[in-house]
Amino acid sequence: MKFCSACGKTVSLKVPELDDRERHVCDHCDTIHYQNPRIIVGCLPLWEDKVLLCKRAIEPRKHYWTLPAGFMENAETTQEGAVRETWEEAHARVSSPVLYTLFDLPDINQVYMFYRCELIGPEYGSGPESLEVELFDESEIPWTELAFPVIYETLKLYFSDRQSRVYPVHSIELRKDAWHRMRQPV
Amino acid sequence: MKFCSACGKTVSLKVPELDDRERHVCDHCDTIHYQNPRIIVGCLPLWEDKVLLCKRAIEPRKHYWTLPAGFMENAETTQEGAVRETWEEAHARVSSPVLYTLFDLPDINQVYMFYRCELIGPEYGSGPESLEVELFDESEIPWTELAFPVIYETLKLYFSDRQSRVYPVHSIELRKDAWHRMRQPV
Repeated sequence: MKFCSACGKTVSLKVPELDDRERHVCDHCDTIHYQNPRIIVGCLPLWEDKVLLCKRAIEPRKHYWTLPAGFMENAETTQEGAVRETWEEAHARVSSPVLYTLFDLPDINQVYMFYRCELIGPEYGSGPESLEVELFDESEIPWTELAFPVIYETLKLYFSDRQSRVYPVHSIELRKDAWHRMRQPV
Repeated sequence: MKFCSACGKTVSLKVPELDDRERHVCDHCDTIHYQNPRIIVGCLPLWEDKVLLCKRAIEPRKHYWTLPAGFMENAETTQEGAVRETWEEAHARVSSPVLYTLFDLPDINQVYMFYRCELIGPEYGSGPESLEVELFDESEIPWTELAFPVIYETLKLYFSDRQSRVYPVHSIELRKDAWHRMRQPV
């Protein structure tokens, strides 16, 4: 950030009065521009014993498999955002979304939330951000070709919880070493 | 938003290619400026049978009682933010924070999260954003003087769950009518 979005003049990094950290503050109109973490919302869409994954058509991690997810928009709920992204990326309709995993990624200023849900039928297809969309059972999951640690962790938790059929909300902090864990043999 | 924070020239509302909604786009350098919901994190700090509340020293809702909470910062986790806000607003140290309530407030583009936790001792005091900080047992809660619906709902859930000593994560959507519910007799 170099310029003030309110008046167009330059900004400087300063600690505002009563604050304890540097912010971008306008040199002209004194507007303080706060920067905060972003929320990414997605679904873990299920059909019978299978999970719906999308092969990414865009960077980062193009050609790797992901759960449908994207940035939460203003004026929607986390659940609405998760369902919207599932339609946009996988052309799939889902029912009964329930919060399942919440990941803190402080290294990249993101919070991820995944909703466990059921496909309303085995109909799906590739949206503009997906090359392929497919249902996978546990033995077919492409563990070495998953896009992000949050995907790996959500799938691992799901297949573990499925044994007891109890699905608590999991709240997890992921640091950069989560990439290393994802690359270990399952 | 009137000016581009990257180059300082004017922005216009446009629907970018492959997008489906208006964004602020720079007329000069084409930077797209996304606006997304913000996360507010806080604690439900407990000491024996009591809950710690803060009387707000600032608007909005100055003089009303709240749980310690504030905007999540970059480079921290939701849990770290909740603990930090509890120190800043109530000068209280807490242990064992566990995610308890998650509120979607799509009318104001906010997501709230409260962590249930224990005070490490009955020590607390007013930070610069609080006029008073006090422990309340259930019969003493100032139900008609609570600052926000998220506070009311979190306290109601807690006293209800406490009867069974089971505290699931609650994920709740609150619309403007939540203010009306908060003003009903308890």
